[in-house]
Amino acid sequence: MSEKKEISEKRQRLIELGGEILDLSRITALMGWDQQVYMPPGGAEERGMQSSVIGRLIHEKFTSDEVGQLIADLEAEVGDLNADTDEARSIKVLKRSYEKQTKVPLPMLMEQIQATTMAHQAWVEAKEKSDFSIFEPHLTKIIDLSKQYADLFKPYDHVYDPLLDDYEPGMKTADVKAIFNKLRPQQVELLKAIAEKEPPDNSFLKQYYKEEYQELFGRYVITRFGYDWNRGRLDVTHHPFTTGFGQGDVRITTRYLKDDGGSALFSTMHEAGHAMYEQAIPAKYNRQILGNAASLAIHESQSRLWENLVGRSKEFWSFFYPSLQMLFPSHLANVDLNQFYRGINRVEPSLVRVEADEATYNMHIMLRLEIEMGLIEGSMEVKDLPEIWNTKMQDYLGITPPNDAAGVLQDVHWSSGLVGYFPTYALGNLVSVQLWDKMLEENPNIPDEIAKGKFDTILGWMHEHIHQYGSKYEPQELMVKATGSKITPEPYVKYLTTKYSEIYDL
Amino acid sequence: MSEKKEISEKRQRLIELGGEILDLSRITALMGWDQQVYMPPGGAEERGMQSSVIGRLIHEKFTSDEVGQLIADLEAEVGDLNADTDEARSIKVLKRSYEKQTKVPLPMLMEQIQATTMAHQAWVEAKEKSDFSIFEPHLTKIIDLSKQYADLFKPYDHVYDPLLDDYEPGMKTADVKAIFNKLRPQQVELLKAIAEKEPPDNSFLKQYYKEEYQELFGRYVITRFGYDWNRGRLDVTHHPFTTGFGQGDVRITTRYLKDDGGSALFSTMHEAGHAMYEQAIPAKYNRQILGNAASLAIHESQSRLWENLVGRSKEFWSFFYPSLQMLFPSHLANVDLNQFYRGINRVEPSLVRVEADEATYNMHIMLRLEIEMGLIEGSMEVKDLPEIWNTKMQDYLGITPPNDAAGVLQDVHWSSGLVGYFPTYALGNLVSVQLWDKMLEENPNIPDEIAKGKFDTILGWMHEHIHQYGSKYEPQELMVKATGSKITPEPYVKYLTTKYSEIYDL
Repeated sequence: MSEKKEISEKRQRLIELGGEILDLSRITALMGWDQQVYMPPGGAEERGMQSSVIGRLIHEKFTSDEVGQLIADLEAEVGDLNADTDEARSIKVLKRSYEKQTKVPLPMLMEQIQATTMAHQAWVEAKEKSDFSIFEPHLTKIIDLSKQYADLFKPYDHVYDPLLDDYEPGMKTADVKAIFNKLRPQQVELLKAIAEKEPPDNSFLKQYYKEEYQELFGRYVITRFGYDWNRGRLDVTHHPFTTGFGQGDVRITTRYLKDDGGSALFSTMHEAGHAMYEQAIPAKYNRQILGNAASLAIHESQSRLWENLVGRSKEFWSFFYPSLQMLFPSHLANVDLNQFYRGINRVEPSLVRVEADEATYNMHIMLRLEIEMGLIEGSMEVKDLPEIWNTKMQDYLGITPPNDAAGVLQDVHWSSGLVGYFPTYALGNLVSVQLWDKMLEENPNIPDEIAKGKFDTILGWMHEHIHQYGSKYEPQELMVKATGSKITPEPYVKYLTTKYSEIYDL
Repeated sequence: MSEKKEISEKRQRLIELGGEILDLSRITALMGWDQQVYMPPGGAEERGMQSSVIGRLIHEKFTSDEVGQLIADLEAEVGDLNADTDEARSIKVLKRSYEKQTKVPLPMLMEQIQATTMAHQAWVEAKEKSDFSIFEPHLTKIIDLSKQYADLFKPYDHVYDPLLDDYEPGMKTADVKAIFNKLRPQQVELLKAIAEKEPPDNSFLKQYYKEEYQELFGRYVITRFGYDWNRGRLDVTHHPFTTGFGQGDVRITTRYLKDDGGSALFSTMHEAGHAMYEQAIPAKYNRQILGNAASLAIHESQSRLWENLVGRSKEFWSFFYPSLQMLFPSHLANVDLNQFYRGINRVEPSLVRVEADEATYNMHIMLRLEIEMGLIEGSMEVKDLPEIWNTKMQDYLGITPPNDAAGVLQDVHWSSGLVGYFPTYALGNLVSVQLWDKMLEENPNIPDEIAKGKFDTILGWMHEHIHQYGSKYEPQELMVKATGSKITPEPYVKYLTTKYSEIYDL
């Protein structure tokens, strides 16, 4: 057998194994979707067992000696892992992932799965009863396991690095700190200036909007955006999310609030942004490691772009507002376009991250990041979290949660073992504006197009500069390719300042 | 280590491995449910890949040497496999299944999966276009693979035995032939007698009934039956079915026809009958081989009992008819209870099995069984099927399908590789009446209870005599335990004759 043939057989074998592992992880995603959307309560226990069987299979298959040997052989063959070919890059991404996963002993993985299953149940109960003490021992365990996990990657620059790196490949704690240190004072200053002004009225939003028409409108909007229903669907859940089982099936969910007509619409646009990214990853990467998104921050940039840069813009509403008025004539009879635009952009320090406006959102993230770092570094203790949370909420946003359910217990992430994830939300905001600015520089007509209900230039630009690459490049590399610069806060601050200066007459 | 400890460790290991295999098969079931209920069309290709990865994993895990050795060791330990303990029986059932599956070479299994995936697609297209030639080569392949499969189990009494045995453990082709040979002339005679009489009017059913109210009524009925919504749900599909992912999550589906107000209701009762069986299998069998149903005929007996013995009875409607009239006052204003009862029991030779009445249903099955046997024995050829089908339809039911979509292409089974499955439908009818008679002998009050909307005696009797055993006993054994007799056609014929003599004044 010639050497070339051997190499191509090895490559084929690795693609095959990788495909099987991806298939299994997508099956896990389907099980998760079903669990959140349609599973009856009685199914929880057995579903948990079924998930952990798949989780272990994925780990065993991926960390096998065969996979390690194939990666090593092919690495030697492709040479420079930074070369710009799919072959070199897929080996690089696989190697990175393989090296991380093989460091985790199976018993630790099983302990993590068990601990998060129990922590999640405890969190649900704790949130319902607004009693942090129910969740406290579980969170202590999760933090302990996160530290143990981080320690597998010694030496590190910072103990938080290995956690962050799982969601934002190549990003360091120092990078995030530097970005946030620049961002924080400027956002605080902007918020102060806004707080001195009279806020626009948004009471027209804070009433009951018939769910059926909300859905109709949401579906109309994201259809125009370019969400492909042949390869997706929209369902209702407690917490909106996007999940994909391959490029051909990327689903979103939303929720309809009884006292807020805006929440579902903006969340639908948000999730459609996530989904259009996954739907657009090229078919050539199907069942391959490069067929994933580049990172969570890049993913979030897509959702925030459609939700905020597009969906909260004047141009967007100049096109869509008449349709909304048709559906809700009595709600909106006395609200003109400008009032509506100002109302949906009202800045209001609020308790809950997922309902936060653009100007305050990042403050929620900084608070969480500081707590995560404190816990992981050991400078904070889990038992003190409710107090720390409330103090920081007062410092950053001038409000104090009335109870822990609306405070430290509001997010699901920690109960699922997701530590290191939160910063990607704020980074996603920054990325969205950085991409937006570059796109508008190249296509100054975009605002006019939006005002005509046309979005293909935007989606096409994202296809070309972001979506087509899957996970071929690390996020910072991708940003340099797309915009000429790594992630930086200036464009975001400028965007916020310009937008709110006009709305608030600063 | 003591010998006892070793045995108990081996048993533990086998339970663990068996649990994982069951988990995987239930994940497959979830994927199938999603595919039929909610998957967007774009997901089909990758879903197919994902299913085959799981299918291969199940096969590999189950047919491993470790499983074989554990079964052999534990078999030696428990001694008599027919002893009435769960330990002995579970080894027996496992061994039976292991021996069947290890006979199938992996390439053959993969060929089957691939062939049925393609055959299913071809069948969908063939049915849509009503063109048998599109499906013909695929069915030829399926029949060929079925013969190859049967030949793995030589020597056999009859080539059809190994196929039948997959769905009806322990049942032989000779048994089925004997039963059907008794049944056929009596059903034919009854149908002749009925055909000479004026049929009751059922035109009130053949109109549009608002789906929302059909659903309301169907949910109400099966809630009273005892279907547990905490461990199940009802969705809409093209073809109604039941599927379970463990005792805690057993789902059903239905479909609403535009021109028939009865179809969805009877199918909902039917599927609820299946589901209440699976919901009632004891928790001690969770994730264990004995936690399955005894056989397809036993399964079908449960669905047919609730659909027909209960759901098409006079007592049932004396309780429920007022509620139905409330929902559909204009449809049913001029239809009294007796007219309604006679209308829903109208006998009408029809083209489509799933819509057939009780008196003609088994004729559809006999036709299919004869064709399957002819194909497997080699006395018929696939290319002649449309003609054979139409001739037999004329012989048995006096009607000829206008096209192949309403004829030989109507059922999905063959396209999914299910050969040997059809007879279990007719056997299920027989079993339902056999169980019913025994239950009424012991509980003569049941008809009065039904007339009061009470069903717990029925469900309780089934729990005690059928559900609680899972797959511990082979179907014929279970029937002897429950009724004192193996499956026999006499009670069914007597039931049909009595029922229709009254309705048709024979």
